Amino acid sequence: MKTILIVGAGRSSSALIDYLLQHASLNDWQIIVGDISLEAARERIGSYAEGKPIQFNINETSRSEEAIERADVVISLLPASLHPLVAKHCIAMKKHFLNASYVSDQINALHHEATANNLLFLNECGLDPGIDHMSAMQVIDKIKSNGGILTSFESFTGGLIAPETDPENPWRYKFTWNPRNVVLAGQGTAKFLMEGQYKYIPYQQLFKRVTPIDVSGTRYEGYPNRDSLKYLTTYGLHDIKTMIRGTLRNAGYCSAWNVFVQLGCCDDTYKMEGVQQMTHRDYLNSFLDHKVDLTVEEKLCTTLSIDLQGDEMRRLHWSGLFSDEKIGLSEGTPAQLLEHILNKKWKLTKGDKDFIVMWHRFGYLQNGIKKVVTASFTTAGENETQTGMSKTVGLPLAIATKLLLQGKIKQRGVVLPIKKELYDPILEELRTLGISVIEKEM
Amino acid sequence: MKTILIVGAGRSSSALIDYLLQHASLNDWQIIVGDISLEAARERIGSYAEGKPIQFNINETSRSEEAIERADVVISLLPASLHPLVAKHCIAMKKHFLNASYVSDQINALHHEATANNLLFLNECGLDPGIDHMSAMQVIDKIKSNGGILTSFESFTGGLIAPETDPENPWRYKFTWNPRNVVLAGQGTAKFLMEGQYKYIPYQQLFKRVTPIDVSGTRYEGYPNRDSLKYLTTYGLHDIKTMIRGTLRNAGYCSAWNVFVQLGCCDDTYKMEGVQQMTHRDYLNSFLDHKVDLTVEEKLCTTLSIDLQGDEMRRLHWSGLFSDEKIGLSEGTPAQLLEHILNKKWKLTKGDKDFIVMWHRFGYLQNGIKKVVTASFTTAGENETQTGMSKTVGLPLAIATKLLLQGKIKQRGVVLPIKKELYDPILEELRTLGISVIEKEM
Repeated sequence: MKTILIVGAGRSSSALIDYLLQHASLNDWQIIVGDISLEAARERIGSYAEGKPIQFNINETSRSEEAIERADVVISLLPASLHPLVAKHCIAMKKHFLNASYVSDQINALHHEATANNLLFLNECGLDPGIDHMSAMQVIDKIKSNGGILTSFESFTGGLIAPETDPENPWRYKFTWNPRNVVLAGQGTAKFLMEGQYKYIPYQQLFKRVTPIDVSGTRYEGYPNRDSLKYLTTYGLHDIKTMIRGTLRNAGYCSAWNVFVQLGCCDDTYKMEGVQQMTHRDYLNSFLDHKVDLTVEEKLCTTLSIDLQGDEMRRLHWSGLFSDEKIGLSEGTPAQLLEHILNKKWKLTKGDKDFIVMWHRFGYLQNGIKKVVTASFTTAGENETQTGMSKTVGLPLAIATKLLLQGKIKQRGVVLPIKKELYDPILEELRTLGISVIEKEM
Repeated sequence: MKTILIVGAGRSSSALIDYLLQHASLNDWQIIVGDISLEAARERIGSYAEGKPIQFNINETSRSEEAIERADVVISLLPASLHPLVAKHCIAMKKHFLNASYVSDQINALHHEATANNLLFLNECGLDPGIDHMSAMQVIDKIKSNGGILTSFESFTGGLIAPETDPENPWRYKFTWNPRNVVLAGQGTAKFLMEGQYKYIPYQQLFKRVTPIDVSGTRYEGYPNRDSLKYLTTYGLHDIKTMIRGTLRNAGYCSAWNVFVQLGCCDDTYKMEGVQQMTHRDYLNSFLDHKVDLTVEEKLCTTLSIDLQGDEMRRLHWSGLFSDEKIGLSEGTPAQLLEHILNKKWKLTKGDKDFIVMWHRFGYLQNGIKKVVTASFTTAGENETQTGMSKTVGLPLAIATKLLLQGKIKQRGVVLPIKKELYDPILEELRTLGISVIEKEM
């Protein structure tokens, strides 16, 4: 019998845990789910006999070591900043370690030790990063093996809401993963390559300079993610002329979100004064000039040159930004207060379905002829708990764990899912689970 | 005989060192000037017999201690980040310590030790901070002692160039102090109080939302500095309704500088690619979209909604931003490259005179009647070395040193020049040296 320890039973863990529990009996696995809240761990397991909930706090060293000692594989769904702690225990106890977060320098530094101990430390094996890497590398390797020369790669992913969900919501968006990350998204400078030129877009321009992207007949808008350049090395695309990775939103979102960016509402570096008594309207007003003869609405529109009756204002009104409702926190940074205000309307509620969209476009030369191929998929959640996000983040990790325990993964050390032995079987099984990446020659 | 050790003989040290050398013989002082470059120290001293140049590197602990051991007072003109190192030696050797930089938490932490050892640790005793504190507190204390109630305080200072200097320069600006600080100016969020409301302006709005300010018949533009709120405590103005401190520039500067801010040119957090071969024009183009049918000039104007023939473009053209000249560095952040490009035209050259402008406005109630008083001064440098910046930063510190050695300063511990025993004699002597703050009832 093999033992799988999953640490972290939060928002996106349901699909991963369900999959492993469903496959446990046949494969002779025991599934231990550890969370700070024993109750949360218990809930995820439900009635499965193969599952065992435990209380797990990575900061309690000896109890964490005990739990890890008993496992063969450890999957971490904890916040990415805690992964190095888990990983070090895994090195010490000689256990495989899998997660869906961006690999950090601290994890990368463990490569030789992991390899020497015959351990797989698999990272970025969720949705984005994860399915994006796998579906991109499958196409890239195919183009290369057919003698094609890659000239451009563009890749955009978004976690949105299904068309039938919350039809009055003009943002066409709700919080389907960590709300804090949504509010802080895009800070820093986006770096990418466009027709052979390095391009840089700072935060203050990011939500203004969006790219229209059509997927399955719907027009979305994309903005570039932080550092696309590092994937030149990861994907082995050193001679490519265009390389950009980004985020998708429904049309109109970015222009409205840009209001928050321009006013400084997403700043997380200082605490605001007088939060206890602050209303939504006061909050906005603190970022606007003092002018007694103008309303908050008028000042905002004048400052940012937007239309009082326009689409940005419609979205702000819907989110209650101009209301005299108390925020309801006693302290916080601008970003923390904004998250709290937005969450009043952006929390998934009963019956809500989220919606994942991923789109890649590859340009290449085949025998001197320019070709273009796209690869994309969309998938919706079932409800507010069984989300598309949970499925697309959790299933690749679950399948990778199965393949590893079945002896089908030979790679060792710190790796990303960019090799055929990982992406082929994972993408194939995802297809059977309703997540089908579709390629189209243009 | 008393010994004064000055560490740092850089750009702004000339007026301070000259003053102390001129007063050395009469007061029986020895003036030791220490710098990493012995040559620089020697040059500052010239032919004065009372001066002695030494090689000084704060990172060479035992030699630094030796030099400090021999002094009675230590004045640091080193970069502010090195002050805590100097200050710790001063505590250990029981020496007074004076500087013109913003006081840091590390320096503040030495208050009790300095007091216990009967030492003066005087900070923020230059221009801004320095003369601004002194001239403000002189007026504030006078209003209070006459029974007035302060309702507003606004204070703006700028280091500019004299009207007759570089008349073709449309920016009306050159680097008269640390160029790096000019390029990075305004990053973070400005916080202030306006008619009883806390206000926050992020970097991306700062150079757009300027306030017109008239001083001696010239109209300037001001933008708020980072945290004006902390001066509520420093100045003892807890019940005031408006509190804002800021920076002055000549008209039109901010709107043109905003181009750099919006494009991300002042970002100092990452190194750009391909710097070796990069021209000024390439540099700008890296922050703009790839559009083959538009010139760099057209893309910039479209992106930022500015006029191709307008004032911002006139300034950028004058600074050579669109030229095909190589930048001439092998690597650098956007901010480092911008500094290097601007320095080609913004370096003070022979005969250039800088120009300092300071302006305060106080609102108060006297017997229930609203009153307004301003206090301001302007002063020009003599040439590119004897700058107004060097005078206004160095002389307050030099005078404070004299007063201290003459036994006229009773305060001890970590202090700012906000008490009468400091500001009265310093402002009085500055007046005899051509720096006269003029008060006007409005």
